[in-house]
Amino acid sequence: MADTKQIDLFLHELGAILKEKRLVTDQAVLLQNSRDYGQLATEPILPIAVAYPESTEQVQAIMRLCTEHKIPVISRGAGTGVSGGVHVLGPCLVLNLSNMNKILEIRPQDELAVVEPGVINSELNDAVKEYGFMYAPDPASYRISTLGGNIATNAGGLRCAKYGVTRESVLSLDVVLADGRLITVGTQTFKGVAGYDLTSLFVGSEGTLGIVVRAVLRLRYLPVDQRDMSMVFETLEAALEGIQTIGRARVQPAILELIDRPTMEVLDRSYGTEIAKLGEAMVLARFDGYGAPKEEEVVRSAFTGMPVILSAIADPFATTLIEMRRTSRGDLQDDAYRMGEDVAVPKSCMVEYVRKVREVAQRHEVDVRIIAHAGDGNLHPTFSVEPDAGPDPLVRLSAALEESIRLALAVGGTITGEHGVGLIKREWLGWEQAEDVLQIQRQLKSMLDPLGILNPGKAIQ
Amino acid sequence: MADTKQIDLFLHELGAILKEKRLVTDQAVLLQNSRDYGQLATEPILPIAVAYPESTEQVQAIMRLCTEHKIPVISRGAGTGVSGGVHVLGPCLVLNLSNMNKILEIRPQDELAVVEPGVINSELNDAVKEYGFMYAPDPASYRISTLGGNIATNAGGLRCAKYGVTRESVLSLDVVLADGRLITVGTQTFKGVAGYDLTSLFVGSEGTLGIVVRAVLRLRYLPVDQRDMSMVFETLEAALEGIQTIGRARVQPAILELIDRPTMEVLDRSYGTEIAKLGEAMVLARFDGYGAPKEEEVVRSAFTGMPVILSAIADPFATTLIEMRRTSRGDLQDDAYRMGEDVAVPKSCMVEYVRKVREVAQRHEVDVRIIAHAGDGNLHPTFSVEPDAGPDPLVRLSAALEESIRLALAVGGTITGEHGVGLIKREWLGWEQAEDVLQIQRQLKSMLDPLGILNPGKAIQ
Repeated sequence: MADTKQIDLFLHELGAILKEKRLVTDQAVLLQNSRDYGQLATEPILPIAVAYPESTEQVQAIMRLCTEHKIPVISRGAGTGVSGGVHVLGPCLVLNLSNMNKILEIRPQDELAVVEPGVINSELNDAVKEYGFMYAPDPASYRISTLGGNIATNAGGLRCAKYGVTRESVLSLDVVLADGRLITVGTQTFKGVAGYDLTSLFVGSEGTLGIVVRAVLRLRYLPVDQRDMSMVFETLEAALEGIQTIGRARVQPAILELIDRPTMEVLDRSYGTEIAKLGEAMVLARFDGYGAPKEEEVVRSAFTGMPVILSAIADPFATTLIEMRRTSRGDLQDDAYRMGEDVAVPKSCMVEYVRKVREVAQRHEVDVRIIAHAGDGNLHPTFSVEPDAGPDPLVRLSAALEESIRLALAVGGTITGEHGVGLIKREWLGWEQAEDVLQIQRQLKSMLDPLGILNPGKAIQ
Repeated sequence: MADTKQIDLFLHELGAILKEKRLVTDQAVLLQNSRDYGQLATEPILPIAVAYPESTEQVQAIMRLCTEHKIPVISRGAGTGVSGGVHVLGPCLVLNLSNMNKILEIRPQDELAVVEPGVINSELNDAVKEYGFMYAPDPASYRISTLGGNIATNAGGLRCAKYGVTRESVLSLDVVLADGRLITVGTQTFKGVAGYDLTSLFVGSEGTLGIVVRAVLRLRYLPVDQRDMSMVFETLEAALEGIQTIGRARVQPAILELIDRPTMEVLDRSYGTEIAKLGEAMVLARFDGYGAPKEEEVVRSAFTGMPVILSAIADPFATTLIEMRRTSRGDLQDDAYRMGEDVAVPKSCMVEYVRKVREVAQRHEVDVRIIAHAGDGNLHPTFSVEPDAGPDPLVRLSAALEESIRLALAVGGTITGEHGVGLIKREWLGWEQAEDVLQIQRQLKSMLDPLGILNPGKAIQ
């Protein structure tokens, strides 16, 4: 890092690259750009400045300058991540790409769109709707998160049970490298195997390998039909068994979500509903496409005579419940006394995992509630504790959290299904991956970012 | 490379690793293992020996030995690739993994299977069928190609229009590195974003970065229903327009293939059918899942009143045609006078591409016939010339081929949609990718294979 004089020089040169008002050192803006929605262990650390580039050329010039001055760079969009992936850790420049927010092309006949990284996920969906398309990946944050951020974390979402995660919808990326060079990886085609798969390397790399300035995204035809259904079960085990039943009926729902009773209670409090009294767990399913009516019928038949409360056919409340579920973690931001997790496990292990997590929570006297993208085995337990409840609440919370991660790994799971490692999950990465694998990632990082200026201290260990 | 004495020592040590008869230097076996189905520009070059390891430990020991002796290694399975990816280029050891052919686990509740690399694609499909599953990627070679080979080339196939290519079905890989270390990448879960996506890096890397010794593969529920349909059009343009019509009807076929009239003639000659006289191009579609009947109905409606000959509902000949199409390149092996290509282009550019390719063929007085995975924009033109037809037939063939590649690139396409770069497409890679991108791939290669002993001279430029 540089001394004050060097930083002044850096800022002066940076100002020459950007348009007026696009280089900000205002304290409030620095604070806004100092973190994401993930838990913050310390007081916020402010960046040197926030740059709002408006073109690829500006991003390139900025990276050349940061390379020259060895200034770390955190690129970000809306900052809706929950793993601390854009938390500021020390003096750095924040490259806020939210002004690079143009949908450059919609090409219906090619079933693709070309976007800048600052475009909001739902804005793209709104724009392609009139052509009969959707952009499938729909993280819970889809109304506020940017496509650049979705790509940086390889975001999942509800619909990925059927349509895959972000990676499956990214065809090509323009990436500015640490030294300012611009490369294009991938192809504008649905299939392509020319050379190594660099696109997948950048997707999910959380701004540590390069800065995505343009993306070619695959669109999907909007399903013609959509049937939503809720199922309330007497036990969580029965709900998870019910999910297997749907699979055995060879039905592929577009959405298949699980909500436990504590989460149902949260929804009841938030929305004035009364669902928690109906049972111990709720499954929400959406069937879409031409097969939707038949799929719904088959699933209803499969549950005939079983102790499950099904929503009426075409009950709009089932759709409402899916929308409620999207925000079921309540206010998204974790704090010291509440931590949301993001493990994924092999599907058959969900029952065991949930049972053990509840035991862990009980033993440490903390609360836990669970939602899951059950079609994918991706679970989001949220642990919480009252600040004034018993001795060392934070110690107990942390212990429960750690044990839950170990449990997921013990059944062959992963520490993060869709949120990314960011800062917060870094210490756990070595629990999941062997030293040789960690080392390859360090080598990749050194190869593409030899000075270590791209979001240092994130994503890998 | 080593001298004779060193090679003798190497073979002696190699023999100690492998079981009796698993190290072969018999000329006939060396010849069989000297190439794949791709065109061979020179006389076959024989490897030093062929090793048939039977365990991961043996592969590790072999790689340690090859590292010590700096002996190049070509790993392979059935060798059904068509890009020369396993052609022998000089003294080397061929590591034939076809004896590592066990299906280690089928886990229906987790919707996955664990396999060794030598398992034949169709064998896995046969094995999982009884559980109600399929392994979706189905390259034309699925009855003879190994899953290890499918992974090495990121194989596509017919069904990937709906179910994605091989990469989308690979969850985790065990990989032996050049120096013999064994790593596990990916997860046993459907979603996982812990660290960089190393799985995608190995998938499609054609044995140049490591040797896959075990794979965790995602299975899909077997579709409950399947409706096949053939459509014959008066012109190729009309057929390609018809494909857009299907998309606009928001139908996602599992299979959507295009065959031109010259290919129809080949089929007629092979099977005694009479389809070529019906029109200029045929589209074959398969709809599957619960929506299949409705999708077929909608597509039929969309073509009402249009000059297209549709197969009757449930006509088994439509299914037969799809099976015939799987082998429509005739005998799979290209020779000097026949070259099959594998470009992919943005879907809207297929018409323009095909028209121009035909002009090119005409100008160079060579024959061309075209089949396409039209749902993906992946086209397989096959150029051929009679050895005694006119002056310099090979020069004309080569010129037409090269122009066709340039044409695909000019409309935003790629040199290879699913076959891989191998040896044969290497010279074209630089036409598609910028020097900076090629350089990153070279760096990746050096990073994982510093001695350059893993299938040198392949996949990248």
